[in-house]
Amino acid sequence: MTDNTARLTELAKRRGFFFQSSEAYGGVAGFYVYGPEGATLKENVQDAWRDRFVRREGHMEIESPTVMPEPVFEASGHLDGFDDMILECPECGTSHRADHLVEDNTDIEEAESIPIPEVEEIIAEAELVCPTCGTDLAGEPVDDFNLMFGTNIGPGSSSPGYLRPETAQGIFVEFPRLKEYARGQLPFGVAQVGPAYRNEISPRKGLIRLREFAQAELEHFIDPETDEPPLAEVEDVEVTLYSAAEQDADGGAPQTMTVGEAVAEDVITSDWVAYYLGVAKDWYARIGVDMDRFRYRQHNEGELAHYAADCWDAEADVTAPGAEPDWVEITGFAYRGDYDLSKHGEYADEDFTIFKQYDDPITVERATVDPDMSYLGPEFGGDAAAVADALEALAERDRSAFEGDEVSVDVDGEELTVPVEKTGFAVEETTESGEHITPHVVEPSFGVDRIVYTVLAHSYREEDLGEASEDASGEAASEADDEDEERTVLSLPPEVAPKTVAVFPLMDKDGLGERAREVADELRAAGFEVAYDASGSIGRRYRRQDEVGTPFCVTVDYDTLEDDSVTVRDRDSTAQARVGLDELATRLRTLRAGETSVSDL
Amino acid sequence: MTDNTARLTELAKRRGFFFQSSEAYGGVAGFYVYGPEGATLKENVQDAWRDRFVRREGHMEIESPTVMPEPVFEASGHLDGFDDMILECPECGTSHRADHLVEDNTDIEEAESIPIPEVEEIIAEAELVCPTCGTDLAGEPVDDFNLMFGTNIGPGSSSPGYLRPETAQGIFVEFPRLKEYARGQLPFGVAQVGPAYRNEISPRKGLIRLREFAQAELEHFIDPETDEPPLAEVEDVEVTLYSAAEQDADGGAPQTMTVGEAVAEDVITSDWVAYYLGVAKDWYARIGVDMDRFRYRQHNEGELAHYAADCWDAEADVTAPGAEPDWVEITGFAYRGDYDLSKHGEYADEDFTIFKQYDDPITVERATVDPDMSYLGPEFGGDAAAVADALEALAERDRSAFEGDEVSVDVDGEELTVPVEKTGFAVEETTESGEHITPHVVEPSFGVDRIVYTVLAHSYREEDLGEASEDASGEAASEADDEDEERTVLSLPPEVAPKTVAVFPLMDKDGLGERAREVADELRAAGFEVAYDASGSIGRRYRRQDEVGTPFCVTVDYDTLEDDSVTVRDRDSTAQARVGLDELATRLRTLRAGETSVSDL
Repeated sequence: MTDNTARLTELAKRRGFFFQSSEAYGGVAGFYVYGPEGATLKENVQDAWRDRFVRREGHMEIESPTVMPEPVFEASGHLDGFDDMILECPECGTSHRADHLVEDNTDIEEAESIPIPEVEEIIAEAELVCPTCGTDLAGEPVDDFNLMFGTNIGPGSSSPGYLRPETAQGIFVEFPRLKEYARGQLPFGVAQVGPAYRNEISPRKGLIRLREFAQAELEHFIDPETDEPPLAEVEDVEVTLYSAAEQDADGGAPQTMTVGEAVAEDVITSDWVAYYLGVAKDWYARIGVDMDRFRYRQHNEGELAHYAADCWDAEADVTAPGAEPDWVEITGFAYRGDYDLSKHGEYADEDFTIFKQYDDPITVERATVDPDMSYLGPEFGGDAAAVADALEALAERDRSAFEGDEVSVDVDGEELTVPVEKTGFAVEETTESGEHITPHVVEPSFGVDRIVYTVLAHSYREEDLGEASEDASGEAASEADDEDEERTVLSLPPEVAPKTVAVFPLMDKDGLGERAREVADELRAAGFEVAYDASGSIGRRYRRQDEVGTPFCVTVDYDTLEDDSVTVRDRDSTAQARVGLDELATRLRTLRAGETSVSDL
Repeated sequence: MTDNTARLTELAKRRGFFFQSSEAYGGVAGFYVYGPEGATLKENVQDAWRDRFVRREGHMEIESPTVMPEPVFEASGHLDGFDDMILECPECGTSHRADHLVEDNTDIEEAESIPIPEVEEIIAEAELVCPTCGTDLAGEPVDDFNLMFGTNIGPGSSSPGYLRPETAQGIFVEFPRLKEYARGQLPFGVAQVGPAYRNEISPRKGLIRLREFAQAELEHFIDPETDEPPLAEVEDVEVTLYSAAEQDADGGAPQTMTVGEAVAEDVITSDWVAYYLGVAKDWYARIGVDMDRFRYRQHNEGELAHYAADCWDAEADVTAPGAEPDWVEITGFAYRGDYDLSKHGEYADEDFTIFKQYDDPITVERATVDPDMSYLGPEFGGDAAAVADALEALAERDRSAFEGDEVSVDVDGEELTVPVEKTGFAVEETTESGEHITPHVVEPSFGVDRIVYTVLAHSYREEDLGEASEDASGEAASEADDEDEERTVLSLPPEVAPKTVAVFPLMDKDGLGERAREVADELRAAGFEVAYDASGSIGRRYRRQDEVGTPFCVTVDYDTLEDDSVTVRDRDSTAQARVGLDELATRLRTLRAGETSVSDL
């Protein structure tokens, strides 16, 4: 934790962005509350996501339950494979992540991918001790610990359920119905925004590693043979790419290029992944992620899931500028092939394929048999049915076997011979209008909490008000004179800021308070998120709004009572302008949209 | 289930409003998925709720975890008391709700409030059998079954957690911090919208009784002595009230009166509850609840929680008009007193009170003792400390006891006498600037899924298109001619309808499809939820949009290519008007806001 991180965390708690939950009962690691400012910020980030990844793309959004039955996770592989390595101290009983013990106390990186027996050996050889009580951990068993929260649905334990480890399964499992809403046509995308759960052994790093977190996931179902993304829309978007090759190379480093170049040079191998990297880059910038502290990093071979063709993480450096970078994964972009739908198709009773119509129907020849059972019965007795099945299988496999007078089949290791005329062998021509295919999946998976944290970290500034006012009007200098010379400011984009505007009466007397409350109510009715503050000096009230990132402040003063005008002040430049109340809402809308600035009013 | 209910459920599944989850694995009772249309409808209802109950009221909204640790529910009482009565069939093993068995098979109503031994007797006397297998249930034990979903936080079972049974506890438990955000001043309100869980023994009735459901709860913290709601704002709102007295009276019936009258006549005893009943009534109408199938019903004495002073449910009849009413509770409005904060204050380590400043500091006299232990020690030996404690308690209780020369206290049943001069008795004056009070709570608690279902049920209509066109333009008749004469329509208010507008090309050729897609994209960029449909006749496309409640349809035809105008069609009246593309977004905004109608264009 840098000082910056600590100060942001303190501000987040004091001003209602986020804090640990149930602190009155000692708190529970890995569970956080979004306070009033944070809940709105998060909601705004989610709305901006929906705007870009659902509405603008023409995708669907669904909402499925957070509790799902066990068979879903047998199919998805989470029941068997969603594990971390656990080691319990024999003395104090504290549970540790074995791979973290290794990473924290040896030179080994990415210990997660090392097999358990080797991890046990490393722990013994490196003479690692319990970080809590100092007990020697050599010889202690390392186990798999499943990270799903389990529960029981209904009375008794006959119907186990789990809190979903990702929102994606709630989409995959409903595919048979979702494809109907898409009228059976690929491509289509289905999104979900909501909680997911991961029962971490020892959570740390606040909002970055939670046991209950929010995901915004999009599953884009495509026909890999024919569907192409609209790559032209993003080909000129510049992205910073840290490829697997650069990560492996001595002195390798992230490269900046356009999406078009990255595809042409095969740095990104999937056009679909490239498309979403381009779209997401612009979206991150829109919500306030600093592009100087942002990159895309490709999964290297060790990280890549066996079914994934290509995978890139969006990473943000959440430290202050100039500090040692701390890259945090905030989104994963994966080309998952047909893995997810194939697994559910295998385990479930419904159809997880799409019927793909051919442009023109095709004619196929199919060999069939229709054995004469009145011959097979007396000839083979109890084996007659097995002979018939074997003949059918043979016809499908090798029709040339039926070219002679007799045909031989193997039944339970015995070779039995049948006259071809008794098999009813025939070759039929059938017309097929299409085939069933299992769609491939392109998955951008956004970690909402980490993105919210990144937006806060990247918008957090401590600055000298004298400096801030250099490029602003003379009014700003008086702001600094009024109070202390420094301020903390969150320069959040207006679209995501918890409050768009704060309304102050200059003083809470002579009717100014009443007038200011009216102004606040009118702005609320016009759809703005409005703060009202009447306490302390105007300078102190500006500082309070700066800390929570409110882009505009409106002050009602004695002139307002005369001429119905108010002072509008800009958070970042501290510039001020006088605006008539009749046009206040309109002006604030253009300010919020970035179409004008307070200095230009 | 009426036919109407069955047809609505069929439509909901076919068109993507809601359906049972994980059906590919046989489904799980009590868990539903909101499909694309339903998820947006629900989101819109929640946004309308936030607009009215958070933004317009100036309240805060937070988001706390769905998993909470056990001590929270020890304090709240859910661990001990959040039970249903369960009876397991000894033959087939099916679990039943014992109170439902009694209600379904005897004349007894509200069996939930009958003690378990009596329920067992009733089951034996009425000779009830298992509804699944017919086995006699006489003598089978009825047990309490806790309805919280349990899980374990972290490895092992040392840290049990539960899925919250209500969003409210996530607010109450954070009160010590939330009051800081309110700067320690009452009144203030804190809202939360999100999932809650109830592990029903045997869920039924689809969206009405879910194991995972969504709540929108507001906890309004008030000083009962001084805070008053702005009752004047709602005093003229007409409400239909079914009071406890009317429910008990022979031939009693709901009464319609204004909120002001209901308060004046003491039908509603809490002004705060009255205020929210008035606000909510207008809100329900705004989102599409039919006020002819809506009422407020007061809890009678048996239902009322011991701590609640007054409680009313908003109830909606979700059957078709004319059918036997089926009243469903969709919201509870409770005056909960200081119950919730007192309990947490008692169990937790933090301060759940508010410091209430007096207008003027007051001076209080306080009697204290400072016993001379060098006298008490030798005199009373091992009892000396107990004597000192008894003297202190007596001074606080009855200072007149110290008026003589000697004072007597009772220690373990023995009366011991001490000279007053050895007690150090004194009366001190102290100045107090205020006192710590535990705020009272007013709680409107909305069941989002039931409200969504009610809005769908009340907006569902099957109608003859000839009738619909009677009061519309001649164009409507041609709509009916074009296709079948009947239609199913959801007359959802534009604010909550999943899509605001659908765009059709007249045909998907001659560039009409491209032009229509451009129009759809422009409307999306302007912030509208847009559907696009190019398949089938225009009449069939109108029917599809009617079924999902899209209020406006826009058709791009050959004239569009000439004069940049389109046909706008109204869902309810089927009226049509020609609108220029340059003003389409503006017109749709005024149509959506109800400021104009298509017939007036």
